[in-house]
Amino acid sequence: MDSAERPLALTLGDPAGIGPDITLLAFQARLSTDVPPFVLLGDPAVLAERARALRLDIKMETIGEPSAAPSLFAKALPVLPVAVPSDVVPGRPDPAAAAAVQQSIEQAVALVRGGAASAVVTNPISKAVLTRAGFGFPGHTEFLAALAGREASDAVMMLVASDLKVVPVTIHIPLKEVMGALTQERIVKTLLTTAHDLTRYFGVARPRIAVAGLNPHAGEDGTMGREEIEMIAPAIAMARSLGLDVTGPHSADTLFHGEARKTYDVAVAMYHDQALIPIKTLAFDTGVNVTLGLPFVRTSPDHGTAFALAGTGKASPRSLIEALRLAAAMRNHAEAKP
Amino acid sequence: MDSAERPLALTLGDPAGIGPDITLLAFQARLSTDVPPFVLLGDPAVLAERARALRLDIKMETIGEPSAAPSLFAKALPVLPVAVPSDVVPGRPDPAAAAAVQQSIEQAVALVRGGAASAVVTNPISKAVLTRAGFGFPGHTEFLAALAGREASDAVMMLVASDLKVVPVTIHIPLKEVMGALTQERIVKTLLTTAHDLTRYFGVARPRIAVAGLNPHAGEDGTMGREEIEMIAPAIAMARSLGLDVTGPHSADTLFHGEARKTYDVAVAMYHDQALIPIKTLAFDTGVNVTLGLPFVRTSPDHGTAFALAGTGKASPRSLIEALRLAAAMRNHAEAKP
Repeated sequence: MDSAERPLALTLGDPAGIGPDITLLAFQARLSTDVPPFVLLGDPAVLAERARALRLDIKMETIGEPSAAPSLFAKALPVLPVAVPSDVVPGRPDPAAAAAVQQSIEQAVALVRGGAASAVVTNPISKAVLTRAGFGFPGHTEFLAALAGREASDAVMMLVASDLKVVPVTIHIPLKEVMGALTQERIVKTLLTTAHDLTRYFGVARPRIAVAGLNPHAGEDGTMGREEIEMIAPAIAMARSLGLDVTGPHSADTLFHGEARKTYDVAVAMYHDQALIPIKTLAFDTGVNVTLGLPFVRTSPDHGTAFALAGTGKASPRSLIEALRLAAAMRNHAEAKP
Repeated sequence: MDSAERPLALTLGDPAGIGPDITLLAFQARLSTDVPPFVLLGDPAVLAERARALRLDIKMETIGEPSAAPSLFAKALPVLPVAVPSDVVPGRPDPAAAAAVQQSIEQAVALVRGGAASAVVTNPISKAVLTRAGFGFPGHTEFLAALAGREASDAVMMLVASDLKVVPVTIHIPLKEVMGALTQERIVKTLLTTAHDLTRYFGVARPRIAVAGLNPHAGEDGTMGREEIEMIAPAIAMARSLGLDVTGPHSADTLFHGEARKTYDVAVAMYHDQALIPIKTLAFDTGVNVTLGLPFVRTSPDHGTAFALAGTGKASPRSLIEALRLAAAMRNHAEAKP
């Protein structure tokens, strides 16, 4: 079965967030923006209600198998039902929906691993809401790693925009825990995964990787922190000895302007905001979150649930559209090179 | 004596860095880019040698008093001599020059405090080189605070570009020390100084200040760090009770895109890279470093010594030109409102 018959599996995310809104809007724009066929794993009633709120006239159709989605996609939004047991009020997250949110993600992974769908694309979830409902993972990425039978540290988050790809080595942890979470081994592993998957999914034969320092001015020769000298530079040296094209540690503040971005294929940052600030500053609406190091392709929009915008018609589907398109492109690339 | 007769006092910075290069280039471009009159505090021989390396035909004139500079500025670069006792090789910093580097800064401050010059503009120094020579300050800003008889914590660093102003609460310290250096009091003090000086030097009657959180997603309701709840939000509340227009803590990653930037006059970040990454990503060549909270105006280009570019002709004077222009604009604004 080739990829044309296997749709992307799209999760609903938090039903009180903008996931339903942007799913409907992305489907509506599928022809003009070349959105590849997907099947939504979510509650058809929630979607229908949101379509009414947004005054969107979109036909939906409940299906039993993902294989029915591609041929249906021209005329109706294909939905594999995952019931939300509670009333959904846009903008008012409810822990009662948490089980359905998780189930949608689990089912998407199961479909892709079983070969019925070709990649996982996830709508935004609220870690705060899920945590209150007992969700034991700091974020999507770590949950997906667990579902794939991988260590959380195997999963590598990459943000992708048209002219910047950036990977944070640590992700959803308090800033004060970053120093303890960083190790030479973890940085090397991140570099290896990043290089491998940039080749596999993006066709970059030998990716040029630029690594940021942790401290201001990358520590400025040890005067403002020694992690660069004791951990990051040795990790870079080790990655180089393994054949990777890696430079750094570079000052993070001068790594992301236009001229600097031309010198590498992907930048590796040490923590969340060091990676997320530049890409969201440059590409707020169009950035895509990609998880590397999993046994399947996974992308998502790089924004949150935006509860305040749910049901208002003000949410932009652009990042989701980019996530769907990128997932299909990555899948196609991987399948072309068996 | 009005400001037209009092030039800006420009320091030379590290003579092996690009300070001499960009000083010459800024002077050369003074008519086309409207550079206000300045006097350079540096070694005329170093400057002449660099002009030869860059094949620049620039007339220099040594003067004894800053008041001679403005009338001279149309035809020659005015220099108040500060001798560098060692040979200067572009790109090869030498701790033997450290005393002259410091003296240039001290003299600039003395001239401005004594009323002979109107604002301090500094060329880049190398903290690593100065530290090896016994310099006891983490950076320019802290040194200037000491020269002004202020506490280091009184000085507030602000980066200014055409459509972004951003203030880091902590500056040149290792990332692991940020958590310990941040206090509610320090954040409040930074907010007060920022608001005060935006009114005094930039004419913003009641500045809108947006404050970033420390952790990913500003801690996301305490699930990824509690500094927002325990320290930053209370600091914002206190600043509001003192009459300031302050919002936050905001997720740092979504605070700097175009739409977000329209909602505030200045963003306050918690640490160096959180502030410097967005402004250097957006305005690498044109950003200006401003020190608030001092009893005088001080600006500088927001780049380093760039030793590798010294003497090559590849250094851009744009940030220095912007720093000179902004210093004059700030001075004029403050003098117009006595």
